[in-house]
Amino acid sequence: ALENGYRDIPYHNRIHATDVLHAVWYLTTQPVPGLPNLPTQNGIHSDSVNSITPGITGFLVSKMSSVLEEGYGSLSGLIPALELMALYVAAAMHDYDHPGRTNAFLVATSAPQALLYNDRSVLENHHAAAAWNLFMSQPEFNFLVNLEHVEFKRFRFLVIEAILATDLKKHFDFLTEFNAKVGDDGVSGIDWTNENDRMLVCEMCIKLADVNGPLKCKDLHLQWTEGIVNEFYEQGDEEATLGLPISPFMDRSAPQLAKLQESFITHIVGPLCSSYDSAALMPGRWVDPTDGELDPDTGKEEQDTEEEDTADEEASTELHETKKMHRRKVFCQITQHILENHEMWKRVIAAEASEETKEAKPKCLGNPSDPITAIREEEEEQVSKEEEEEEE
Amino acid sequence: ALENGYRDIPYHNRIHATDVLHAVWYLTTQPVPGLPNLPTQNGIHSDSVNSITPGITGFLVSKMSSVLEEGYGSLSGLIPALELMALYVAAAMHDYDHPGRTNAFLVATSAPQALLYNDRSVLENHHAAAAWNLFMSQPEFNFLVNLEHVEFKRFRFLVIEAILATDLKKHFDFLTEFNAKVGDDGVSGIDWTNENDRMLVCEMCIKLADVNGPLKCKDLHLQWTEGIVNEFYEQGDEEATLGLPISPFMDRSAPQLAKLQESFITHIVGPLCSSYDSAALMPGRWVDPTDGELDPDTGKEEQDTEEEDTADEEASTELHETKKMHRRKVFCQITQHILENHEMWKRVIAAEASEETKEAKPKCLGNPSDPITAIREEEEEQVSKEEEEEEE
Repeated sequence: ALENGYRDIPYHNRIHATDVLHAVWYLTTQPVPGLPNLPTQNGIHSDSVNSITPGITGFLVSKMSSVLEEGYGSLSGLIPALELMALYVAAAMHDYDHPGRTNAFLVATSAPQALLYNDRSVLENHHAAAAWNLFMSQPEFNFLVNLEHVEFKRFRFLVIEAILATDLKKHFDFLTEFNAKVGDDGVSGIDWTNENDRMLVCEMCIKLADVNGPLKCKDLHLQWTEGIVNEFYEQGDEEATLGLPISPFMDRSAPQLAKLQESFITHIVGPLCSSYDSAALMPGRWVDPTDGELDPDTGKEEQDTEEEDTADEEASTELHETKKMHRRKVFCQITQHILENHEMWKRVIAAEASEETKEAKPKCLGNPSDPITAIREEEEEQVSKEEEEEEE
Repeated sequence: ALENGYRDIPYHNRIHATDVLHAVWYLTTQPVPGLPNLPTQNGIHSDSVNSITPGITGFLVSKMSSVLEEGYGSLSGLIPALELMALYVAAAMHDYDHPGRTNAFLVATSAPQALLYNDRSVLENHHAAAAWNLFMSQPEFNFLVNLEHVEFKRFRFLVIEAILATDLKKHFDFLTEFNAKVGDDGVSGIDWTNENDRMLVCEMCIKLADVNGPLKCKDLHLQWTEGIVNEFYEQGDEEATLGLPISPFMDRSAPQLAKLQESFITHIVGPLCSSYDSAALMPGRWVDPTDGELDPDTGKEEQDTEEEDTADEEASTELHETKKMHRRKVFCQITQHILENHEMWKRVIAAEASEETKEAKPKCLGNPSDPITAIREEEEEQVSKEEEEEEE
């Protein structure tokens, strides 16, 4: 029933919901190098400090935790089952009945939903409320019937918090709070016995899962970018029909692909990954420092970086440093992917700039209305899709 | 039309809306000792720093400001007309279509409104959304037709912010933020050229206006407490009908009048007044330090204080210190009222305790189910009404 409430639109459809659910599952169950595992007894957490319901602090994957190698942990070993389940349910619900338009569009057009929610997290409030309304609508949908009342109340609260956390308008507030919590010395700042700390980790987790496109391998990343850009173009078409200015990146006649995807990684996904990684929560594996397997790749990427402009270099350097620091110890597949995808988009931009120069129009560089055609980009990089910061 | 959307209920009716509107008018237009008045030219503010719409930073009462005596200012001389108008409109809208039940009740009963608003500021979101919906429903309701689009957007934002600020769940967050802004040395922390600072002042202003019962003279205070307690009793009746536990203070068969009113002043209204007063925003008049008119009263109240228990004394002392410090310089009618009302409720409590002792039931003191009858309290203090912290 929940699945059927997702509309048939290019990006925010049932597959996106499933994808985000898969991503939070991945982030919470895969081995994380260096993450502790609190002592458990028969799946029951021995430490119930700060838990309002000590009886239910069981862990979902206690059996699995025991097969983790020495030196690895997983979030499912640190976050009680109720909270983990709330995270998964939130992921499944989080874009329920998404209309394929952005919050900014709904507010600008005074849509009924924007009026209803006072222009605040319009979509996220609607997703949560509509999905919970479905849950309440028929007794047989109540898969939580065995929870105590206080457990149910807490579960509902956690699900709502996680869904509302996906509003990118609050992105930097979350990052600021999380970075302050984590501090400069890794996980030391996160108190796993504090339910507010665990909730913040879950919020960061669903946020990362929600923008996981650039964390996938290139082909999948391009598939998802095709989805979001098509949804954006439909909004752009409606804006044009309504006589409104077409939002940035939403004009199908003037695609701004590489620049905006690069911007999305630089400003949203990259910093989020860095924060999550700083807290040492990223799944991965320890790598022998003398393992030379990956070195040629690193060398190549650093060479690429030097060819780029200063602004790019700055962001790039930051990501590289994180990568290099951790590569001595840890290999992380999704960090690897975002770096590769970031580099790819930057190469496209560099190629575009070079093309512009050849055409003797240096002043047009970076102009929002640059008439970059999809066809030329396909020739250059097999790429014809783009994301932007409003993607959720 | 707005007025007709208020229901005929004991407290949150159209008279409460009018009362809060009057209170914000009072707080923003009456002379405040020591408040500066920024230089204006023909009602146009000469300083447009931080204003997104320099053309409209006129002031509502520039003519009136000029008749203020030396040494006095008013908020209407510091807050541009658009923002002041937003505050007044917010006051008129702020409890629109109030059902006479608390947020906690709506959440506990899974009311449709609670589902719709994800258990977050359920009533306040509804008041704002429903009132704006009314505004949008007919072209002739649009009294803002002469505002520029950007002005309208800002106006709408300010009204919504002010209405949502009346959720007492956020009370302590607002106080913390405001106290941090004001600091220990009076108004120095408020930057009147910063729109965020002005918005915070407006939010504090509507919050104070919304709980202004204890700031009125005793007779009016008792009238309003009769209203809120009757509304509470209706909720208590419904809770009993639904088989729910009756909320504190809402059981008409066991009134807890004085203790809870005293608590409301001690924990909510008193600290709010103190903060507002610390920022030197309270209307009043300078008093000659040698003016002995009020001294006997002060002496009397201090004597009363000494008879009370330690916890009361602490809160009381704090209020008294504020009062005495300012009385040397400033007389403020509403501060005077809250002190008198606070003392009155404390005397009732003391009398009740004395009564309890006589009845040899000292263990029952402070028991939530104390069977204090309204009749006995009327005998003691001519008082049979009570407020509590959830009042808005």
